[in-house]
Amino acid sequence: VLEDMLRRAKAAQAGLARASAAQRDKALAAMANAVRSATDEVLAANREDLARPESQALSPSLRRRLELSAGKLEDLATGLEAVAALPDPLGRGTGLRTLPNGLRLEQVRVPLGVIGLIYESRPGVTVEASGLAVKSGNALILRGGREALASNEALVRALRAALADTGFDPDVLQLITDPDRRWATALMHLHGLDLLIPRGGAELIQTVAREATVPVIETGVGNCHLYVDRAADLDMALAILRDGKVGNPAVCNALETLLVHRDVAQAFLPRAYEKLAADGVRFHGDEAARALVPAMEPATEADWAREYLDLELAVAVVDSLDQALAHIARYGTRHSEAIVTNDYPTGLRFHQEVDAAVVYWNASTRFTDGFQFGLGAEVGISTQKLHARGPMGLEALTTIKTLAWGQGQTRDLS
Amino acid sequence: VLEDMLRRAKAAQAGLARASAAQRDKALAAMANAVRSATDEVLAANREDLARPESQALSPSLRRRLELSAGKLEDLATGLEAVAALPDPLGRGTGLRTLPNGLRLEQVRVPLGVIGLIYESRPGVTVEASGLAVKSGNALILRGGREALASNEALVRALRAALADTGFDPDVLQLITDPDRRWATALMHLHGLDLLIPRGGAELIQTVAREATVPVIETGVGNCHLYVDRAADLDMALAILRDGKVGNPAVCNALETLLVHRDVAQAFLPRAYEKLAADGVRFHGDEAARALVPAMEPATEADWAREYLDLELAVAVVDSLDQALAHIARYGTRHSEAIVTNDYPTGLRFHQEVDAAVVYWNASTRFTDGFQFGLGAEVGISTQKLHARGPMGLEALTTIKTLAWGQGQTRDLS
Repeated sequence: VLEDMLRRAKAAQAGLARASAAQRDKALAAMANAVRSATDEVLAANREDLARPESQALSPSLRRRLELSAGKLEDLATGLEAVAALPDPLGRGTGLRTLPNGLRLEQVRVPLGVIGLIYESRPGVTVEASGLAVKSGNALILRGGREALASNEALVRALRAALADTGFDPDVLQLITDPDRRWATALMHLHGLDLLIPRGGAELIQTVAREATVPVIETGVGNCHLYVDRAADLDMALAILRDGKVGNPAVCNALETLLVHRDVAQAFLPRAYEKLAADGVRFHGDEAARALVPAMEPATEADWAREYLDLELAVAVVDSLDQALAHIARYGTRHSEAIVTNDYPTGLRFHQEVDAAVVYWNASTRFTDGFQFGLGAEVGISTQKLHARGPMGLEALTTIKTLAWGQGQTRDLS
Repeated sequence: VLEDMLRRAKAAQAGLARASAAQRDKALAAMANAVRSATDEVLAANREDLARPESQALSPSLRRRLELSAGKLEDLATGLEAVAALPDPLGRGTGLRTLPNGLRLEQVRVPLGVIGLIYESRPGVTVEASGLAVKSGNALILRGGREALASNEALVRALRAALADTGFDPDVLQLITDPDRRWATALMHLHGLDLLIPRGGAELIQTVAREATVPVIETGVGNCHLYVDRAADLDMALAILRDGKVGNPAVCNALETLLVHRDVAQAFLPRAYEKLAADGVRFHGDEAARALVPAMEPATEADWAREYLDLELAVAVVDSLDQALAHIARYGTRHSEAIVTNDYPTGLRFHQEVDAAVVYWNASTRFTDGFQFGLGAEVGISTQKLHARGPMGLEALTTIKTLAWGQGQTRDLS
């Protein structure tokens, strides 16, 4: 049962935390080679997954996420080697302090402990998350989607063998293989689990946030807006709009809603429509937008709140910065928001007043990404405010511990 | 209703976040004077609270926590002035980074937003929390105990008037005055609340952790241990034991369990018993401890898990460091743990392997405290690992926001 998995994970994690960075990096190198060596076996398991009736019923984009190839496996192996090459997130302190009584204190970065991960289709996540966990000294309890079960089993088998070969307890990585839903529910209530990360659609993340009694980091729901101000460079605005909507619409940092100031709506909207419609984008406009571009479909209340993750865009004309800010405050998911303006006070207010992980002034929201931000690895993008906000690197999988060195100091009595 | 309070709090908080540090400090100074001016009114309200039938039924120590005096109010006013004098926790960045494409990023400290606080008896918390909230740019929704309702109302009235006098929206501070329990429950589920902090006994904190769907920071349950190793300086161990148990037994960083290595049990336990029994401490010993000091009461399983918060101590004799570590891992609440030893490898292992916010080597657990740690103000002591761990200062009430300055940068398309 899950309590046993947790107990084994804790014991295995203690060994990982005691190990040096060099030993953990050696395990990561072995894991990379294990993924390469297991290519045939993993691809056979992946074909089995793809042949399941429930996989046949998946949409083409979900099927693509499930599908592995020799090239993808090589990328995952290279990714593990890249994580090994990152600086060690553990063992750094904030600087020793000595209290007036001589007591010395140091806050050091230590692993969180045992992390649960609930995720969907993409078996690559199994490898990526395992790499980040080993690098940061944490044990993982993985709960993948049932459609990817055979692939995940084959990958975890290879990764666990690599851990054992490099002297680690393989229970650092454990996969829940029973597809029954109550295992996911039990994981959300597993007392002693240090962190649970849901990765997947908005529905999964909301369920976990609502149900879980263990600590959770919510990731990746992005209803991102672009506000084109009256003082915008409209060529720049169009380039940023296209990058945000067409570049990769299926990701959380893609744009979902365009807000345009009334004074530039006539100059901007027909042009934007012409360009993006040619890219295949469907527009959902409010009345004022449709007055300028009648070919847009009418937007409903639901459009303002939707994360399309597809070639669709909601468009509203606003009278002022205040109206744009109010729209974003109401419908945004605090992920990434952008303004295009050359007016300094307007840009300053947008930077200050928008409540989001990342606020862009004259740049695309698509930069909200751990690799773009230079973190080297990405655990996910936090849309909450506690612990981590925005792209999460390895440090998000650590906590601090204060070590105190005394010579018998007491506070009240001696 | 609560949703209206939240809406008003958000609007008021926006004004606070826009204000300069000098303006926020001016509000804090006005709040200090308002507490002084309202002394008569607050003390009258406090007498009313103390006269309630439910207050009459309180234990003497809880009644003491409820009771205010002119001196206590002056201390609270001085405390607000001390918070004003602290460095501004907002607006500091981690250093500008420029990406290869010229996009500039800076992570700045910003307020969390609206914070809920559920607390018991002590009306001083109303003033302390309000000061920390205003300093850190956050709005507060306060839910105090029904036994302190009149005192809290009088204090909040004075503090709100001071905010209005210094140009702030008084809805920065709002008190829930309806004593019905469903208000506390509703607060735990108030979508859009940025943080909920329970302050009080273990039962309150566990209820909030289990029930809440908003982000929570758990504070202050401390089942703290002292391990006296075979290589301990026994005089030092006795001083640290007494400081931890007798200095102030009602606080979370007080000691609750003593673990003694078998090799020094005979030299240490009778001496420790003699000294602390004279201080009024009741001992609950395991069999080996009672073989040395038959006057100890027998410890039951429940004693190992209890946070006495009183002049009581559980005592176990252990055969090894490993057994001490296992005991702490099983019963500790990850707050503060201490070892007394002069053996270097033993101390190193204790520092490394104990999973707690603060781990002491040859010093008292009583130093786990925001003021002792030099934070200037204390929001509480976090016993969780995410966001904040150990004593929380003003920074724990902030989050980061990444600001990006571009010149039209796009990622995939242009």
